[in-house]
Amino acid sequence: MKPELDNQSVHRYMRVYNYYKQLILSQQLAPGSRLPSIRRCAAELQMSRTTVETAYMVLAAEGYIISRPQSGFYVTDIGRTRKTAEFQKSAAQKEKKPVLYNFASASVDRETFRFELWRRYIKSALRQDERLLSYGEPQGEYDLREVLCRYLQNNRNVVCTPEHIVIGAGVQSLLHILCPLIEGRKKIAFYNPGFRQGRAVFEDHGFELCDRKQEQPDVCYVSPSQATAWGDVLSVGERMKILREASEKNILLIEDDYNSEFCYYHHPSPSIQGLAGGNGVIYLGTFSRLLLPSIRLSFMVLPPDLLEKYQRRRDFYNQTASKTEQIALCQFIRDGHLESQIRKSRKHYLAKTKILCSEAKRIFVEEAKVTAGETGFVSLLEIFGAGNLREVLYRAEEKGFAFLSADESEQGIRLALSCATVPVEKFSEALQLLKQCF
Amino acid sequence: MKPELDNQSVHRYMRVYNYYKQLILSQQLAPGSRLPSIRRCAAELQMSRTTVETAYMVLAAEGYIISRPQSGFYVTDIGRTRKTAEFQKSAAQKEKKPVLYNFASASVDRETFRFELWRRYIKSALRQDERLLSYGEPQGEYDLREVLCRYLQNNRNVVCTPEHIVIGAGVQSLLHILCPLIEGRKKIAFYNPGFRQGRAVFEDHGFELCDRKQEQPDVCYVSPSQATAWGDVLSVGERMKILREASEKNILLIEDDYNSEFCYYHHPSPSIQGLAGGNGVIYLGTFSRLLLPSIRLSFMVLPPDLLEKYQRRRDFYNQTASKTEQIALCQFIRDGHLESQIRKSRKHYLAKTKILCSEAKRIFVEEAKVTAGETGFVSLLEIFGAGNLREVLYRAEEKGFAFLSADESEQGIRLALSCATVPVEKFSEALQLLKQCF
Repeated sequence: MKPELDNQSVHRYMRVYNYYKQLILSQQLAPGSRLPSIRRCAAELQMSRTTVETAYMVLAAEGYIISRPQSGFYVTDIGRTRKTAEFQKSAAQKEKKPVLYNFASASVDRETFRFELWRRYIKSALRQDERLLSYGEPQGEYDLREVLCRYLQNNRNVVCTPEHIVIGAGVQSLLHILCPLIEGRKKIAFYNPGFRQGRAVFEDHGFELCDRKQEQPDVCYVSPSQATAWGDVLSVGERMKILREASEKNILLIEDDYNSEFCYYHHPSPSIQGLAGGNGVIYLGTFSRLLLPSIRLSFMVLPPDLLEKYQRRRDFYNQTASKTEQIALCQFIRDGHLESQIRKSRKHYLAKTKILCSEAKRIFVEEAKVTAGETGFVSLLEIFGAGNLREVLYRAEEKGFAFLSADESEQGIRLALSCATVPVEKFSEALQLLKQCF
Repeated sequence: MKPELDNQSVHRYMRVYNYYKQLILSQQLAPGSRLPSIRRCAAELQMSRTTVETAYMVLAAEGYIISRPQSGFYVTDIGRTRKTAEFQKSAAQKEKKPVLYNFASASVDRETFRFELWRRYIKSALRQDERLLSYGEPQGEYDLREVLCRYLQNNRNVVCTPEHIVIGAGVQSLLHILCPLIEGRKKIAFYNPGFRQGRAVFEDHGFELCDRKQEQPDVCYVSPSQATAWGDVLSVGERMKILREASEKNILLIEDDYNSEFCYYHHPSPSIQGLAGGNGVIYLGTFSRLLLPSIRLSFMVLPPDLLEKYQRRRDFYNQTASKTEQIALCQFIRDGHLESQIRKSRKHYLAKTKILCSEAKRIFVEEAKVTAGETGFVSLLEIFGAGNLREVLYRAEEKGFAFLSADESEQGIRLALSCATVPVEKFSEALQLLKQCF
């Protein structure tokens, strides 16, 4: 069956081009066969000669046909090779193993999120036609920044005005804006080296990663409420110590306040930015965990000296976050839903973590130590004298397990388990299966 | 009136902190006055001493109070200064002049966009709860990439598979990923130097901008359908020439296909990426203009050698574009709405441009030359012997005009007028007022 001339394409020449391309790719026009002359083709298809000529030119440029002077256009055999390449999915797409017990998930438990409510706010944002017709403010919508500012002042003792806040689609987008602002500084140290997405951006901008115990960094990246993969929280004293050291040694601090809303036990934790009175610290926050990971909305609070530099460059950076989602989030916070959402999530994850820990104790008894993380939804399982890490991980993977992290400790093997998306009903079954891997 | 103890805050210590902070900021607690002791305060507020101690510690760290050993805590006078700084809007926010005739707009005419339809697609995307609970694919949702791939093959003769496509929130987000992939190359030349957002990213990544007429660049950034601010379109011949030169001199090409869907007159314009058979060219596209500028969705097509490099780094980059909007756009294109949207916009802007040009001819008669741009919605008005540019612009601004660009030519003054958001009914009035500025 011959392909149809496509009537929907925007340009006429593309219709001729697609027509022949399909004929060649499906090998209805075999390599070596001759195309009709431009004049004949134009007459047959009722198109202008210019249109057909352009189509032939493009086909020739792409190697589907070849022009032989004084003779005409002939089909090459590139069509055959191209076809396989063009329509083959990469092997990587197919190879993925099914994960049955996903203790590695950074997703959100569906029970914590009120979809119906969020849909209502998005719908109402989408009704603001006029506002959606233009680009957003490069720095982020002003009303959202006002609301964020109030939230941060009241809940995280952050010192700021809406002018200090920059909104972006994810922390990485913000770091891309930040890096050129601090380019005099070259060495950066990460307190929690697990945040490889952050490291990647600094490396891309020519920063040198260093170990703060071995040499003095110019910049320190701290996540005080996520000091390790399993969520250790730095105390006020530790925060003050970091601040003192930074001020003595002229180190710029970047405080990524990820997970601060989920501190369960211990002391409450004021932000370092606030403790510093807003100077010398860049404060970062994100809504991936509070709302939905699929909502790309993060923000940073710049200290006064960097703010000035940023304002001079602001108009060079287009806003990355969706304007619709910014408008929706602004009203969502105004109506008090963010705080109730946080309370709900905290309660939910705390309960889940407790159940996971008690189940683990019941099943592993004396063979392991179980520690609930201080924030979030991560527990640490340390299995004593558990043999070779790689073999254990291989067996676990075969059974469908995925972990947030796994390493060897002095006593055995240490696994970080995120309970975010594994349903409670599966805990017992999963842990019993896990035990068999050792 | 004394402030209430806030019951909604997440941490108890923050309630005490906010309580005193407000008292100090409102100067109900004057500088120098003494706070109750920790013990008394704890008893009064029925809270633990640790909670009150933490609150005092934070207040002290932020400079609201000062601790005098053996005596107690005293209010400083920083509250007064902080208050003015914290609640003052920057002067820049207020200074903006009202624009009555915005011929500089990159927004979209509301008549071209079917909000009702888009809302329907967003609503349906928001119903996919499970999918929204997790982070998106770093490279962009696979089904959207499949749909884009088909669109690009059929309409823009781009050679690609879904694996070659990377999605991001705006062209800048994509350039941030691209820059480290091509870091061996250092000198970049822009065909249309007007794209300062693009230049900013390359500068941030340490690239050196160069003039391709004076020295040889390693990378060339071409917008073949937007070769100048008023939208000149490069012919097939010119595109082939660029390609030949790039291949001879080992120049990597970045083809930003902005506005290609809006070519009105002249020849159809195959993409350079397609003419190159998909090699040695990075293809960039965006939906800001086709749908809404507030939708941050762009994409790039990587050539095979860069794709391999990208795949090794892919997991370090979180996706920046909203997952909801990706899902919505995918179905929107599948149902054929993108193509009808493009046809509608083309027709609408073409009609508007024609009216603007004929009105300008009627009003300026022999005193100016009017040229409709080849793409988009921009017309070029060249006013002969028009005197000093700065004076003209000053007078125009006073009357509420904004232009896309303005410069001096040999004959007089050249203004680029975008008719995107100025309603047709205002054209005559605006042009008559504009004439008075000369």
